[in-house]
Amino acid sequence: MASRRQAARLLSQCKFRPQLASRKSISTFPSSTSSSSTFAPWARYTGLAAFGLIASVSLSYTMAVTEPLSMDSLSLAERDQQQKKNEGVSETSPMRLRMEKFIKEQQEQIVKALEEVDGTKFRKDEWQRKEGGGGITCCLQDGKVFEKAGVGVSVVYGTLPKPAIMKMSANHKNIAPDGEVPESLEFFAAGLSLIVHPKNPMAPTVHLNYRYFETAKPDGTSGAWWFGGGSDLTPSYLFDEDAIQFHRDLKEVCDKHNKDYYPKFKKWCDEYFYNKHRGEARGIGGIFFDDLDETVSDKENTFAFIQDSLQSFIPTYVPIVLKRKDMPFTEAEKEWQQIRRGKYVEFNLVHDRGTSFGLNTPGARVESILMSMPLTASWKYMHEPEPGSREARLVEILQNPKEWV
Amino acid sequence: MASRRQAARLLSQCKFRPQLASRKSISTFPSSTSSSSTFAPWARYTGLAAFGLIASVSLSYTMAVTEPLSMDSLSLAERDQQQKKNEGVSETSPMRLRMEKFIKEQQEQIVKALEEVDGTKFRKDEWQRKEGGGGITCCLQDGKVFEKAGVGVSVVYGTLPKPAIMKMSANHKNIAPDGEVPESLEFFAAGLSLIVHPKNPMAPTVHLNYRYFETAKPDGTSGAWWFGGGSDLTPSYLFDEDAIQFHRDLKEVCDKHNKDYYPKFKKWCDEYFYNKHRGEARGIGGIFFDDLDETVSDKENTFAFIQDSLQSFIPTYVPIVLKRKDMPFTEAEKEWQQIRRGKYVEFNLVHDRGTSFGLNTPGARVESILMSMPLTASWKYMHEPEPGSREARLVEILQNPKEWV
Repeated sequence: MASRRQAARLLSQCKFRPQLASRKSISTFPSSTSSSSTFAPWARYTGLAAFGLIASVSLSYTMAVTEPLSMDSLSLAERDQQQKKNEGVSETSPMRLRMEKFIKEQQEQIVKALEEVDGTKFRKDEWQRKEGGGGITCCLQDGKVFEKAGVGVSVVYGTLPKPAIMKMSANHKNIAPDGEVPESLEFFAAGLSLIVHPKNPMAPTVHLNYRYFETAKPDGTSGAWWFGGGSDLTPSYLFDEDAIQFHRDLKEVCDKHNKDYYPKFKKWCDEYFYNKHRGEARGIGGIFFDDLDETVSDKENTFAFIQDSLQSFIPTYVPIVLKRKDMPFTEAEKEWQQIRRGKYVEFNLVHDRGTSFGLNTPGARVESILMSMPLTASWKYMHEPEPGSREARLVEILQNPKEWV
Repeated sequence: MASRRQAARLLSQCKFRPQLASRKSISTFPSSTSSSSTFAPWARYTGLAAFGLIASVSLSYTMAVTEPLSMDSLSLAERDQQQKKNEGVSETSPMRLRMEKFIKEQQEQIVKALEEVDGTKFRKDEWQRKEGGGGITCCLQDGKVFEKAGVGVSVVYGTLPKPAIMKMSANHKNIAPDGEVPESLEFFAAGLSLIVHPKNPMAPTVHLNYRYFETAKPDGTSGAWWFGGGSDLTPSYLFDEDAIQFHRDLKEVCDKHNKDYYPKFKKWCDEYFYNKHRGEARGIGGIFFDDLDETVSDKENTFAFIQDSLQSFIPTYVPIVLKRKDMPFTEAEKEWQQIRRGKYVEFNLVHDRGTSFGLNTPGARVESILMSMPLTASWKYMHEPEPGSREARLVEILQNPKEWV
């Protein structure tokens, strides 16, 4: 039993640790489905903060849990850990395990693809959070092609307190299907996030995030669940053909699954990545969505959409960066890029709900959250582009987001 | 009456315009005093946002109001405008006019002193806000000594809605002395803010803000009032003698007025300018205070303290910058400065209540608010100073703020 005690000791240090006592209070929690069209901001925080905040408690277990445990006395994290160990992860495994496996594989592939473009290796950090959780953060800095490229995966098991459940239930009736909100609920969240800032001002910055969230029923089966994510492009110099190709690729993936997705998610993206205080979008858009649950499509089909979307990243972005990475540019053009970088920083620190949620969470891994910052940025008082210039046209489009396809 | 109508038209475009209708509802508002030791966050926002947000509606009047008006039908802004025009500003004028005059004079003197150090002229922008208000923003950018120096004055007349009055009354009982909260109240706010980022990494960044807030009674006399402000130093390379001199000068000014001020305000400064997510202070401190009202001292004495504090800026900071501006430095030291600049940006955009309040206020003059940003900043993933280095010692002190005098 030594290793069991060791696991318990590790868990006792976790804020997010599954609380066995409180699980009893939800043992009568029934299951049903219901729909809603609004969304719960808290859920989105969790998803976006995935970049650095959250991670798999299972990491802490790797060495600690070595003997079989009685399944019904275990937390969700423990049960998943056991199942992975005994059966591996297959298409019949719970979505939690499949999503974790998928994003970790994708992280490896994306890192490899970007390393090939740059000719520089990423630094890889596996980390744990003392309150519970951890992740894998891969970062390439001051490379040949990329100023900064970060690809992060995080997976977390934890317990939702009643106020969080109440907020979420506004949008996900499945959390408390009979209107009775339990005192606490175990949850699982996993996501992959990436940001790439190329050096050449002609090559655009790209951001991407895909995430999965689920709450557990007392028997360990999935309660409420939803996916969120998206990808968006932020050029300093706009090449219409890049913008068109980027959006066309995203539309193609969306259309394969649901013809309503692209128009809805493109609009959502323009609205979310908006520097309100500047009156302009952060970039030229892409897609953004949240709360894709059973009211939209079933879990299998939605996971298939998430997989296709994430897998489309390399073939969508890499050709753009290859086309732009060696283009000539002037010092003034580099300066303009630095000013646009400043506005990127402003969005991330002032408006992005995920970043501010993450930074205000005690014990968050700040360096993983702020890996999204560019290596360098600039603020010039009252800097305005020349009327009629390429710089002015970009600003005009950021002020009036455009349909590219 | 043409000019009167013109004034009314100008006012009708102002969000902050004094609302004559609502003033009637507070005509029975009595006056008394009371004390409180807590503080109203909203009030602090107003003060800190002064950097760019707020300004004098009187600017809009300069040409519009040309004939004598009946004093009792006028708003606070109109009455002040009339009084300035007819009698000028003297020691017997309302504090509003004296504070406005004082900070505008100080702005000129500080700009002049910094121009002498740098050998470069400031750019001066007088601006108005279409919702009401305006100010004077002076900025020097990419000079010989200063990377960026901004000195801003703003003065605003406006109307507080009931929820804001209720929040403020928690700390300033004078706003609603009989516990009856009026529907609205005219207010006045004025402040001077400055930030100086020198080029040489051996020369520290400095920030300063002094402000005055007051609400009006229906007869135009002052209702509740308070002062706030402070000044703090942010070096990239710490010279103990500079830190000691900076704090000694501030302590001297404080002690002249109240022996309790310095220890209280130094602590407040360390607590306020704190990058919570980094677990370190933004800089090595100074003083910070708010809500200096009749429960602390009378208006005349407090104004005298504010005057002495603001007037001490040039003799305190200029000698430090003169000592450091031509010191030799390495490329690595410049890089460290850029990383510290990044953390300065983080504080201003993530934690500073004034900045976020300003940026989230529709119609705010963003360029005046963000004049506080450095010209350039940098973020390096997982950058950590060498143990035992000067850089490491700075971080250590930021993590454990020190008493310098």
